Amino acid sequence: MAMQEPPGAFVSGPLVVRDGSLFTDLYEITMAASYFRERMGGSATFSLFVRRLPKERSFLIAAGLEDLLNYLRDFRFSDEAIRYLDALNRFDDGFLDFLRDLRFTGEVRAVPEGTVIFADEPLLEVTAPIIEAQIVETAAINFCHLQTLLASKAARCVIAARGRPVVEFGLRRAHGIDAGMKAARCAFIAGATMSSNVLAGRYYGIPPTGTMAHSYVSAFLHEVEAFRAFARAFPANTILLIDTYDTVAAAHKAVEVAKEMEAQGHKLAGVRLDSGDITALSQEVRRILDGAGLHYVRIFVSGNLEEHTIDRFLEDGAPIDAFGVGTRMDVSADAPYLDMAYKLVEYEGRNVLKISTGKETWAGEKQVYRFRDRSGRFGGDVLALRDEPSPSAEAEPLLRTVMKSGRIVEPHPPLTAVRDYCAAQLAALPEEVRRLRDAATYPVRYSDRLVVLQRSLEDAVKASEVAPAPREASRHSADPPGGGRPR
Amino acid sequence: MAMQEPPGAFVSGPLVVRDGSLFTDLYEITMAASYFRERMGGSATFSLFVRRLPKERSFLIAAGLEDLLNYLRDFRFSDEAIRYLDALNRFDDGFLDFLRDLRFTGEVRAVPEGTVIFADEPLLEVTAPIIEAQIVETAAINFCHLQTLLASKAARCVIAARGRPVVEFGLRRAHGIDAGMKAARCAFIAGATMSSNVLAGRYYGIPPTGTMAHSYVSAFLHEVEAFRAFARAFPANTILLIDTYDTVAAAHKAVEVAKEMEAQGHKLAGVRLDSGDITALSQEVRRILDGAGLHYVRIFVSGNLEEHTIDRFLEDGAPIDAFGVGTRMDVSADAPYLDMAYKLVEYEGRNVLKISTGKETWAGEKQVYRFRDRSGRFGGDVLALRDEPSPSAEAEPLLRTVMKSGRIVEPHPPLTAVRDYCAAQLAALPEEVRRLRDAATYPVRYSDRLVVLQRSLEDAVKASEVAPAPREASRHSADPPGGGRPR
Repeated sequence: MAMQEPPGAFVSGPLVVRDGSLFTDLYEITMAASYFRERMGGSATFSLFVRRLPKERSFLIAAGLEDLLNYLRDFRFSDEAIRYLDALNRFDDGFLDFLRDLRFTGEVRAVPEGTVIFADEPLLEVTAPIIEAQIVETAAINFCHLQTLLASKAARCVIAARGRPVVEFGLRRAHGIDAGMKAARCAFIAGATMSSNVLAGRYYGIPPTGTMAHSYVSAFLHEVEAFRAFARAFPANTILLIDTYDTVAAAHKAVEVAKEMEAQGHKLAGVRLDSGDITALSQEVRRILDGAGLHYVRIFVSGNLEEHTIDRFLEDGAPIDAFGVGTRMDVSADAPYLDMAYKLVEYEGRNVLKISTGKETWAGEKQVYRFRDRSGRFGGDVLALRDEPSPSAEAEPLLRTVMKSGRIVEPHPPLTAVRDYCAAQLAALPEEVRRLRDAATYPVRYSDRLVVLQRSLEDAVKASEVAPAPREASRHSADPPGGGRPR
Repeated sequence: MAMQEPPGAFVSGPLVVRDGSLFTDLYEITMAASYFRERMGGSATFSLFVRRLPKERSFLIAAGLEDLLNYLRDFRFSDEAIRYLDALNRFDDGFLDFLRDLRFTGEVRAVPEGTVIFADEPLLEVTAPIIEAQIVETAAINFCHLQTLLASKAARCVIAARGRPVVEFGLRRAHGIDAGMKAARCAFIAGATMSSNVLAGRYYGIPPTGTMAHSYVSAFLHEVEAFRAFARAFPANTILLIDTYDTVAAAHKAVEVAKEMEAQGHKLAGVRLDSGDITALSQEVRRILDGAGLHYVRIFVSGNLEEHTIDRFLEDGAPIDAFGVGTRMDVSADAPYLDMAYKLVEYEGRNVLKISTGKETWAGEKQVYRFRDRSGRFGGDVLALRDEPSPSAEAEPLLRTVMKSGRIVEPHPPLTAVRDYCAAQLAALPEEVRRLRDAATYPVRYSDRLVVLQRSLEDAVKASEVAPAPREASRHSADPPGGGRPR
């Protein structure tokens, strides 16, 4: 599909972002200009990871890779983008010519979308000439941050529903068009069964679904007439919204309409509750339906739901068959951002780090090894350097090469495959880590080599950088590489 | 620009949304199908408003109208969209033919972008044949919710900075591509001076700015060499990031580089602090700079900022010249969604409402009248019915007709004009309402006619709908209009 668009456009489902290479922070381009000027063309590795989990999260679901790989594959500055940069009067012609020809030629190693991951574990690492690896930082974080955030929140809602269907309902209050699309995609990956978002149906193949709005009910002179009209239009797919005026009174009307439908050979699919004391109302509505012999009519609940409300309703014995989950899932309301970073860990074979207070990073290219117990459950991870030996033949390395020389190594898996993989990941997560409250911390060990490297680098950088500034520091290019590890 | 795109695409800045009419919840289309089947073509008015403000907000800044009007103007189902709906096997050919020809032909009355508004006050009202007015609900909320959310949060950050520049910095953790663009736009409307987002510079004309990343510093063997290299590339625009290793040590290096720049006839623009004890560090860095005679070097601060951190730094006397505000502003972290709704308030001249527990809505088409005191400060609003007389010749009606017969009445104001208008709005907001903590509630009075109408409708609907379901309710079309107000 990218082929239909002008060069420099980025395509994600129904979205086309013109001049997509400008979807970046200005400093990515000014740093590139400086690297260009200094002739710093060495290979750099950046690691994308979450520094620490929000206190409301005990695990994350990695997502966003497909978009990022497509972005890297199609990365180029359009003529229009170059003209815009030129007009800023900051960049010389040589650099602008360089940008015009710039493509992403590097390597990406990543965990598959749908993988359960934890703090400090790279979702992916990008290795490329430093300008290429640096200039895609903003997009890399933006794409992977949002989708990891949304998939992680959605997984919790799905867990809370204990096998009952969760339908993604939040398009209207997701943060914009892209977030609305990604909320549907990520909820589906995490196990939601359907989405209200029609465009997500069209572009991602997610089954669309819906009921009716309060406005529909109030457009009719009587609620029961609204119910009848909907049943006439969709005899096979009618879910009646019963809280516009009074839920219990409307449940009686739903029974009446269900009986009329039965007389026509149809079955009312369900009723939806969207407000009030959901546990008590769902029990009362169930009694009313069952009392009329309508055991098959399902109770669907929506309205400010998230994992804790779903969990409480089910704990309290509410007879709910399915959940419509919207705003709070789609904005990850209790934790609306992750402390995700994209950090330089190696340049020209030299391991690097930052030691800013509270924002320290681990140096070096990495691999994550995951252990499973005999039943297949995740038993613990080891965060190790990429080039150290695997800690065990049984340990599974999570990061795989997904892009080489700027080319995507294998086709993106279909979304249903990502969803199946994510379900298996969640099933393998120990219950005490997966649970919604007071979850245990999943054990992630840092390899000895990683720890030793980190300490020696911290010592070196403190000795070198925290001392008074050198009066006659030599140019970097004349310095010998320092602080590197043997490769 | 929409002309270059295929029919049915929606264009917002650099974003093109293909099959934009499918950017909706399925129920909008199923309800439309039922209205079509029932031949319900009457005029409906929907009101877009926020039911209640988050506890962290004492006012909102309305935004998102420009996108919505463009969406309505260009609304149409592409052939591709019709094919997709057809494949769902829910809709008959007559309805699909109807959709193929459907355009938005209605009226929109709205407050201008940048207007200060409060709970229950409509940001806009849409009046159109009910299918047209209903089917755009999802887009109307999505567009206006996000931008109102972001502008409202950004306004608080700008207020906290007390005239010091606020730069929008949050592209990487905004919720996706669209939210990243809108975060820059809304922050600018609310008074931010610049943005790191280059694409927002290109498409919205917002001045782009930036400094350098920690990765830049660590790519060099010595921090001071990174500083020198950047100063070489951008002698007129250098802001040095000084917290990669040790802020105080780096401040001394910044002095060294600033002196070297002076020797070349240049001036270091500033230093940036991004972590640690910002108040103490900024004071120490200021002393170091001033001690070297570098009074002109500005101190720029970033790192998990929002209004309360900014406010505290300045309360504590931190000598900060400008703020880079990112994630928490761009996701509105303390209140990541608004309780915004789009509710049917009138159909075929009949006022309607819902009385769902906790989600009651006010019936009737409305107008908001705003009073000012002698100094021009906002003194209070009256929420009234559209057709009642103005409460006073001095009261300003906030809702104006911005679209007639599906056409935009006047060109969108330039973004700088929206920004100026918003600044005037914020200046007119009483200080006790504007303040960041323990703000007073702005007085919004409900007109007597509105209250009387609401009570009579509530009584009528309870009598009509909460009683047992009528056994032989007549078809709506045969019923006389009921509950309507004289017009």
